[in-house]
Amino acid sequence: MTKLEQLKEKLEISKKFEHAANVLYFDYETLCPTDAREDEGEVLGFLSNEVFKILTSDEVKQLIIDLHNDIDSIEDPLDKVLINRSYEAYEKTKNMTPEFQMEMTVTHNKAYMKWLEAKEKSDFSIYKDALADNLKIDKKAIELRDKILPNFYDNYLNDTEKGVLTADLDPFFDELKVGLLELIQKIKNSKHVIRRDFLSRNVPIHKQEEFSRYLLELNGYDFKRGALTTTEHPFTMPVAQNDARVTTHYYEDMFLSNIFSIIHEGGHAIFMQNERKEDFEHYINDEVTNGMHESVSRFYENVIGRSKEYIHLIYPKFKEIFAEEFPDVSEQELYEGVNIVEPSLIRTEADEVTYGLHVLIRYEMEKLICNGLIAMEDVPAKWNALYKEYLGIDVPSDKEGVLQDVHWAHNFGYFPSYQIGNCYNAMYVLRMRKEFDLDKAIETGDFATINNWMRENVFKKANELMPKEWIKDITGEALTPKPFLDYLNKKYSKIYQF
Amino acid sequence: MTKLEQLKEKLEISKKFEHAANVLYFDYETLCPTDAREDEGEVLGFLSNEVFKILTSDEVKQLIIDLHNDIDSIEDPLDKVLINRSYEAYEKTKNMTPEFQMEMTVTHNKAYMKWLEAKEKSDFSIYKDALADNLKIDKKAIELRDKILPNFYDNYLNDTEKGVLTADLDPFFDELKVGLLELIQKIKNSKHVIRRDFLSRNVPIHKQEEFSRYLLELNGYDFKRGALTTTEHPFTMPVAQNDARVTTHYYEDMFLSNIFSIIHEGGHAIFMQNERKEDFEHYINDEVTNGMHESVSRFYENVIGRSKEYIHLIYPKFKEIFAEEFPDVSEQELYEGVNIVEPSLIRTEADEVTYGLHVLIRYEMEKLICNGLIAMEDVPAKWNALYKEYLGIDVPSDKEGVLQDVHWAHNFGYFPSYQIGNCYNAMYVLRMRKEFDLDKAIETGDFATINNWMRENVFKKANELMPKEWIKDITGEALTPKPFLDYLNKKYSKIYQF
Repeated sequence: MTKLEQLKEKLEISKKFEHAANVLYFDYETLCPTDAREDEGEVLGFLSNEVFKILTSDEVKQLIIDLHNDIDSIEDPLDKVLINRSYEAYEKTKNMTPEFQMEMTVTHNKAYMKWLEAKEKSDFSIYKDALADNLKIDKKAIELRDKILPNFYDNYLNDTEKGVLTADLDPFFDELKVGLLELIQKIKNSKHVIRRDFLSRNVPIHKQEEFSRYLLELNGYDFKRGALTTTEHPFTMPVAQNDARVTTHYYEDMFLSNIFSIIHEGGHAIFMQNERKEDFEHYINDEVTNGMHESVSRFYENVIGRSKEYIHLIYPKFKEIFAEEFPDVSEQELYEGVNIVEPSLIRTEADEVTYGLHVLIRYEMEKLICNGLIAMEDVPAKWNALYKEYLGIDVPSDKEGVLQDVHWAHNFGYFPSYQIGNCYNAMYVLRMRKEFDLDKAIETGDFATINNWMRENVFKKANELMPKEWIKDITGEALTPKPFLDYLNKKYSKIYQF
Repeated sequence: MTKLEQLKEKLEISKKFEHAANVLYFDYETLCPTDAREDEGEVLGFLSNEVFKILTSDEVKQLIIDLHNDIDSIEDPLDKVLINRSYEAYEKTKNMTPEFQMEMTVTHNKAYMKWLEAKEKSDFSIYKDALADNLKIDKKAIELRDKILPNFYDNYLNDTEKGVLTADLDPFFDELKVGLLELIQKIKNSKHVIRRDFLSRNVPIHKQEEFSRYLLELNGYDFKRGALTTTEHPFTMPVAQNDARVTTHYYEDMFLSNIFSIIHEGGHAIFMQNERKEDFEHYINDEVTNGMHESVSRFYENVIGRSKEYIHLIYPKFKEIFAEEFPDVSEQELYEGVNIVEPSLIRTEADEVTYGLHVLIRYEMEKLICNGLIAMEDVPAKWNALYKEYLGIDVPSDKEGVLQDVHWAHNFGYFPSYQIGNCYNAMYVLRMRKEFDLDKAIETGDFATINNWMRENVFKKANELMPKEWIKDITGEALTPKPFLDYLNKKYSKIYQF
């Protein structure tokens, strides 16, 4: 066996453990009974540890080093990607002792538990020290690396959206901010009133479920390679190559919540279902950065899901399934109802215009926190001040403010990807529109054309290329918020009639 | 570490793999998408193989032999049970090569696939040779043991209901047969007509689901330590100590099917939820024989679920949830409707009177097949002749006849346990009735009293004792069909008014 074959043999075993762990994780989040969670969590940890043991064994480490030293002799480009990624992962952890690894896990778990408690009690001070501990141990982990980026926050960014750093994001967010604030002001000045009385009507869950399945299938989600179930917080889980599962949450008095969760998570899953077989065979299928992934899910959710054409397409089924609930809601009213723009407290419930400001606030907060420019006790006040400044709203509690997101309990640098994603898709949609009539495809339910284009242009090299190369590969341009702002302005000037 | 501690350390690791495999198995049967099943099945095999490797390693084998040689020095009685069970398992497989084990697995899998095809095409001849191969390899496996019982079928029985052999079951089934045939004749002669028009009414699935959750909770099933979902064939899965899951199948035009599945599977699960903590700690929690387990599930399904008192208890909720579907069905009509006695083709759909004859037919068939007293091609004709003789009905197809059950694709000797279970519970219910008013407890929904009694008398030593000791421990008597026949006669003479 060659060294590459030896490495792949090990990865194949670790893939089996990972597949099992994925099923357990999904089960843990969905069906696992309350009192069984502790034991199932332990088994999950046990399986993850088996993976860790394989990947960090001396044998595997040596294989990675040898293969990387001799990478020029490797012919298959995807094998090269595999070796480079493996080497990067090795470099990140090579100076860590197992004890340090364990300490990191324990510290993060503690922060997560403290976050839960703090959110429950709406009191940031409960979370403060654990968050500081997270920051400290993450910093230590970064400092153990051979290569450290001088702007400390860049190390975080680089871990979640490789190669996209503060120098890229500062001008990006500056331009975005100006554009969004202008647009929001115009919408605020608009006299147009959108009907919203029907948005909180009671809708039986089994009807919502029926509609969800319709939407997923319509959009091209393959139920033979996926499943739909419910959780507190919706997510998508790549269990295995032929198994991309989606969850949602049904609220009886907030039917739109499920609809756009479904379209969003369905978008993630359609991406997963269209990843190249070769990527799985080269064990590089889960290297996608978040920005690429969010660009797809938010493309389905917003560009498609909140478009006039899509509402036109789904309106007959909507009227059929919800005949009793919405006999009096016109197509136009539904379209406007899913596109209300209004500054609000919670990021995950924000409309597509104000959403970018929620992300911007988190980006600014993370720069301050990760670069040690703010004392931990001042974090909530700064958060609230930014919400007042950008969105014009008062934050009444930590729960609805700085404690609303779980992310910092796990890591920093994650939030920008959401907005990068929005801007990526606005960029490639421009090219898509040159190649076929997107509006018509949506209106006629021709998702095969859309998904084929996405597969050939967006999904294809998502695991192979770094984000900056990838968006250039599709559009010929570097990341810019301009097409996204143009898209918003065009759409909302019509809705709000200015 | 003592040898016992060493063994337990290994069992603890294998328990983690088993827990993971249980979650995967449950997932495989419930949520796993069609096209992901092959991969997930492979991972399941991988995990089972890890368990197999641990339990059959030279190290573990030697520990078991040493501990068994020195069993008199072990003080804890449950440790003794563990060592004895481990030694029995070791004895069964010690002369098998890994190649032979693999051949067995492949042979059984092939038989299962052939059964599926044969059932689909309703043609036993497709299954015949694979079934003969099963028989051949099972026989070989038994012949590899040091101890072989002279009546060959007894080896199968002994594997599923330890110590209960043909010498016990021949007189048992003879007595049962006479009693059942007499009772069925009386019912046939009865002029009483039971209303059945409402049994096939359309009932929305979400209402059936709501009713199922009500029934499970009512009966004492703990949702914090379990879950309910759907499958093609209902089953109960002991995933872990705090995780006994139940599945059901909702038919829109056959609402009773789900109701009694739920009560039956819920019974299995209540048993599991009440197993002693010590049994799990001694790794003997899954040694229960089928007859004990079926005695419990069929106690809940029939003795409780089909009783006048239980119907009285659930009738108000039934009327509330199914107000639209059954406005015209009285409590008495519902009670009679769930107790219609009528010879039929399919065991799993049989009423509690004719059920015993379905089992008897299988018992007679298995004796012939396992003792080599019938040619494989004559099996369907013999099956059909027995259905004609005992139940008076013609079997129109293999699908509804000899191919209806999957069991023989996996093993022989399993069927008698169902009827043994019915008779066990009739025996211990006699004692229960001496200690408290069972009818009143059911009618008032006092399942705490029922389940406490079951825990202290029925569940408690189920993992520790052999079936014959166990039923004697509870009732002071050996297995007999008399209390069961008395119970049926008393109940059905009232319903059918003779």
